[in-house]
Amino acid sequence: MGTIQLGLCQMKVTADKAENLRTAEEAIRTAARQGAELVLLPEMFNCPYENACFPVYAEPAGGETWQFLSRIAKELGVYLAGGSVPEREGDAIYNTCYLFSPQGEELARHRKVHLFDIDVPGGQRFMESDTLTAGDQITVVDTPLGKLGIAICFDIRFSELFRVMGDKGAQLILIPAAFNMTTGPVHWSLAFRMRALDNQCFIAGCSPARDETASYVAYGHSLVSDPWGNLLTEFDEKAGVQVVTIDLADLDKYRAQIPILAGRRTDLYRTEALK
Amino acid sequence: MGTIQLGLCQMKVTADKAENLRTAEEAIRTAARQGAELVLLPEMFNCPYENACFPVYAEPAGGETWQFLSRIAKELGVYLAGGSVPEREGDAIYNTCYLFSPQGEELARHRKVHLFDIDVPGGQRFMESDTLTAGDQITVVDTPLGKLGIAICFDIRFSELFRVMGDKGAQLILIPAAFNMTTGPVHWSLAFRMRALDNQCFIAGCSPARDETASYVAYGHSLVSDPWGNLLTEFDEKAGVQVVTIDLADLDKYRAQIPILAGRRTDLYRTEALK
Repeated sequence: MGTIQLGLCQMKVTADKAENLRTAEEAIRTAARQGAELVLLPEMFNCPYENACFPVYAEPAGGETWQFLSRIAKELGVYLAGGSVPEREGDAIYNTCYLFSPQGEELARHRKVHLFDIDVPGGQRFMESDTLTAGDQITVVDTPLGKLGIAICFDIRFSELFRVMGDKGAQLILIPAAFNMTTGPVHWSLAFRMRALDNQCFIAGCSPARDETASYVAYGHSLVSDPWGNLLTEFDEKAGVQVVTIDLADLDKYRAQIPILAGRRTDLYRTEALK
Repeated sequence: MGTIQLGLCQMKVTADKAENLRTAEEAIRTAARQGAELVLLPEMFNCPYENACFPVYAEPAGGETWQFLSRIAKELGVYLAGGSVPEREGDAIYNTCYLFSPQGEELARHRKVHLFDIDVPGGQRFMESDTLTAGDQITVVDTPLGKLGIAICFDIRFSELFRVMGDKGAQLILIPAAFNMTTGPVHWSLAFRMRALDNQCFIAGCSPARDETASYVAYGHSLVSDPWGNLLTEFDEKAGVQVVTIDLADLDKYRAQIPILAGRRTDLYRTEALK
């Protein structure tokens, strides 16, 4: 098994969609210049993270943002996990991550399957279910780089989703995400590290940069965990681009050292995908 | 829902079984004096953690250590989760936790269901499966204090076991455990905090105190995580007794704030107990 040069673009997201696309383009170009073969953008990279904005910024697949992602992936010859965007289909709006090939083709589309509803007194409140519809597919796609899983932010809360992605062979799971100042300091790296350790795979999270003036303040701290639960990188809260080497040989190495996958008692319990 | 005063006894374990029982008795008495209603001992509290020792120290249920635990629980009027001991039944030896009532009755018996086999080059190597047999039951028991789950050390590596205990209603999961100097610093609090957060329950781990002269050096750091993944306490590596208040009302509070249990997509995946 080989290596993957993974670029993470922790970019600032504003209320100006065109500016967001320009910012994303610059970050993707920077990552590609630094050798990235696969580039990951943040959750809702073209739209403020606000329920009032999702219907306004939403586009159908094939729309302006989709075209932008396809074009830049093809031009730069990179795999591009386009963070997430509000996707409109009929009356529904989804929180959707498109994955494009270096030929500019859509390889996969993950619609966030667990909507983010939280209400912490004195802390964060947000109800995605006020405007969004949940997807109904678990996303793992085979590529020449390796088997890639995709999940979005609150999806990481659900251990079974990751067990199923692991069982489907996911070697690297990409997660556009935007934790906040209530959950981020306590749960962010905890969740990424533990899902990677539990499933003995790599997991990358890409957040928007923190904007203290936004109505929803993202935690930032984009990161990559290896299968041992060690962070290969963790950003601070500011905008930036980093390229991280994912060595897929680590999968076999750690799986041989500690049999977390092989040691499961499949006679006592079972997790299964229902779709 | 009420509170539970949980006593943790991070005790030193030696090669002298009688001394280990005396040390445990003193620690349990200290916890009871400090108000503990439920006391937790470490993994293999009566026996060095060595494959060569397990067959030598093993006793059947009803043996010396079992009698000791029953007697002290009854005398002090406490629930007592007797860490773990090597339990002999026929030709098999199990890594077993007995739970006793304040009347001295055995309420539950958990035999470690995932044997600890690890081989980290330059780090820890241990193969429990060289001498031990795995249990085949998942353990959740209803008590007047609340619903208690029991698991032992390496069991915590397996997310599905905890999902099943959570689904069976476990409010507080007790884990006698002995991580080591390879896994402890990286995985110990990570695993306890994340299992508690994932299942929105309390989880307590009780380790032997660290003994640098032992062949297997325990990490120590006994701890309790609340359902938000916050540590209510974490010991250092030294022997000690602490009593922690578990407020079961926190279960409903955190479950209302963030729907990790209620938000599961049971149409997309399912974890089920097979026994």
